[in-house]
Amino acid sequence: KKSFRVVVLSGDGIGPEVVSEAVRVLEVVSASSPDVELKLEPHLFGGCAIDATGQPLPESTLQACKEADAILMGSVGGPKWDVNSKVRPEQGLLGLRKALGLYANIRPANFASESLLAYSPLKPSVAQGVDIIVIRELIGGAYFGERKELGPNDDTAYDTMIYSIPEVQRITRVAAQIALTSNPPLPIHSIDKANVLASSRLWRKVVVETLQNEYPQLKLDHTLVDSASMIIVANPKKLNGVIVTENLFGDILSDEASVIPGSLGLLPSASLAGAPSVADALSPDFKPTPGLYEPIHGSAPDIAGQGIANPVGTILSAAMLLRYSLGLNRYAQAIEDAVRKVLDDKEKGGFELRTADLGGSVKTKEIGDKIVEVL
Amino acid sequence: KKSFRVVVLSGDGIGPEVVSEAVRVLEVVSASSPDVELKLEPHLFGGCAIDATGQPLPESTLQACKEADAILMGSVGGPKWDVNSKVRPEQGLLGLRKALGLYANIRPANFASESLLAYSPLKPSVAQGVDIIVIRELIGGAYFGERKELGPNDDTAYDTMIYSIPEVQRITRVAAQIALTSNPPLPIHSIDKANVLASSRLWRKVVVETLQNEYPQLKLDHTLVDSASMIIVANPKKLNGVIVTENLFGDILSDEASVIPGSLGLLPSASLAGAPSVADALSPDFKPTPGLYEPIHGSAPDIAGQGIANPVGTILSAAMLLRYSLGLNRYAQAIEDAVRKVLDDKEKGGFELRTADLGGSVKTKEIGDKIVEVL
Ligand SMILES: CC(C)[C@H](C(=O)O)[C@@H](O)C(=O)O
Ligand SMILES: CC(C)[C@H](C(=O)O)[C@@H](O)C(=O)O
Repeated sequence: KKSFRVVVLSGDGIGPEVVSEAVRVLEVVSASSPDVELKLEPHLFGGCAIDATGQPLPESTLQACKEADAILMGSVGGPKWDVNSKVRPEQGLLGLRKALGLYANIRPANFASESLLAYSPLKPSVAQGVDIIVIRELIGGAYFGERKELGPNDDTAYDTMIYSIPEVQRITRVAAQIALTSNPPLPIHSIDKANVLASSRLWRKVVVETLQNEYPQLKLDHTLVDSASMIIVANPKKLNGVIVTENLFGDILSDEASVIPGSLGLLPSASLAGAPSVADALSPDFKPTPGLYEPIHGSAPDIAGQGIANPVGTILSAAMLLRYSLGLNRYAQAIEDAVRKVLDDKEKGGFELRTADLGGSVKTKEIGDKIVEVL
Repeated sequence: KKSFRVVVLSGDGIGPEVVSEAVRVLEVVSASSPDVELKLEPHLFGGCAIDATGQPLPESTLQACKEADAILMGSVGGPKWDVNSKVRPEQGLLGLRKALGLYANIRPANFASESLLAYSPLKPSVAQGVDIIVIRELIGGAYFGERKELGPNDDTAYDTMIYSIPEVQRITRVAAQIALTSNPPLPIHSIDKANVLASSRLWRKVVVETLQNEYPQLKLDHTLVDSASMIIVANPKKLNGVIVTENLFGDILSDEASVIPGSLGLLPSASLAGAPSVADALSPDFKPTPGLYEPIHGSAPDIAGQGIANPVGTILSAAMLLRYSLGLNRYAQAIEDAVRKVLDDKEKGGFELRTADLGGSVKTKEIGDKIVEVL
């Protein structure tokens, strides 16, 4: 039996509630697979880790994450750990991304079930068929460039949006690999602000050269970030396929795209330290790609503890974990199919379960139960 | 008679077509006013100026703009002046903003007529009542900070997002003045990325202090830029009032908000070198605030020369010019009312004129005719 270590960071707020449903799903996969075993290890991270150890990312957690094949996370933060305090849960997240070299953030924005179209803020004609995968560079740019805080004896502060050729090359390769998971391959839309920024001119040049040299078969176009932010509202299907962009633009645009499917509770994300493996876990040359998987929603302190949060984003994150880090595409697909069935309207043969974020009253655990049952 | 100089930069593509309708409207104002005269002076700017002089912003144009009380612009650029060429139309625009100190970009996103709700990509329930004024800092941040291009002997490029205390103070005051043009005053929403960026932490601190010291009566809240980009799609009314933000975030968010009203052809913008005057043009202590006014749409080379572009964005820009630079609020209001009547559905007592961008076949000139007639 092939065995994988998965670290589980439940985090704060609704984190533990949604993570425990995803853990049940992973346990079903592990128990029912004849040749793969998943070893799940819980660790402290975020606000709860600050409370217990004074640090959002304790050394023991970091160590376990470094040794793991993949990490499943819930959400961190809450009003208890204030934006102005010196030690903050987000620092743990930024620190973990950097320490593990998780340079590729992958966020699909699509409809887990067609039945959810009604929940989009966009008109059905605009939203229907939206299927975008945003790939955001995650450990470069203004997030990690040299910065100067406002000091007592001066009157300026700055951040540096900096990119190097290898940083852009490797994220471009991830975009290419993801584009190639579809047949025909997905088009790649690179987003920058090359009419103004030097870092964007480097970005565009390197994206063009890398794809021309290494993936000449892929389709590539370029959109300015201001224009992209319009298109995502006005005609998002124009950007169907793979969007690849730098850290700060990706932060803004991936959040923008993520509200199209109607509830943040539905969407997963992955942060990888390399291009996803295309080989199957059981092939002899397979090596896991380390990655961190989390729903895109926050810790939602207002509803924490009530058992009403939507676990679908976390369960789909677990599916991404199986696909991108562990080479277990068939199980990932089975989970996604089960989720679709649970969300589909009854008239489409689904169970039409709706949690509070979708105006329903189904509980977190009932969603987990039903997905496990369908699996 | 009080006399004002207005420079007119028609620019490229559909620029001349839409500007000539706005000019007609300004001429009506000038001719019918007993105590105000507008002197309109056309000048070369953008691609057409490159063709004629080799420069997008010729010295004579810059000089005229410096001496003018206000500037009305169409749009610049087109495929003829390529992104990769050394001299580009946008350089003229960035240069003009900097040379005139136009630090405050003001872009309303609202429905010029309720009858346009059907054209929004958002569901009517989400779009109805959206009334946002985005105030973007226009000559600071990454647009004008120190930058390094990728060189032949290195492998990085960078831009510097830099802000100083006075830069943030003055844009905050513009936001406050605009908030005070409504009664009760509009709430101010400051947008930043203070959980990551040093420049955003300076931004937030200065916005808070400036408003507390100088405008303690105004309501202020803070939203992170990623969250703001979600809210603008999912629940934009939450940001009704005044948004104030730095240059790059403002570029992205103002474009995002501007597609809510359904057509880019409808929306005006202003770029000011100071807080708008609240005094009337005829009061003895009135001084004009220099400003550049333009529709938010581009030069649309695909439809240029056909006489089918929507001139409403430019005509509403002329209204903003009268209000913010020349202290002629009553004429601005009259133009906005006339535009509303021309756009309102017939069942609401309007003329229901629809240009091509709104799926109709009314021509540019017919819109101008009708607005002049209503005036
Ligand atoms: C919490 C914050 C630092 C983080 C980011 O900006 O990267 C978050 O917005 C995200 O997108 O994961
Ligand atoms: C043309 C470009 C340089 C400009 C900008 O980014 O400021 C434009 O997008 C705008 O918003 O006026």
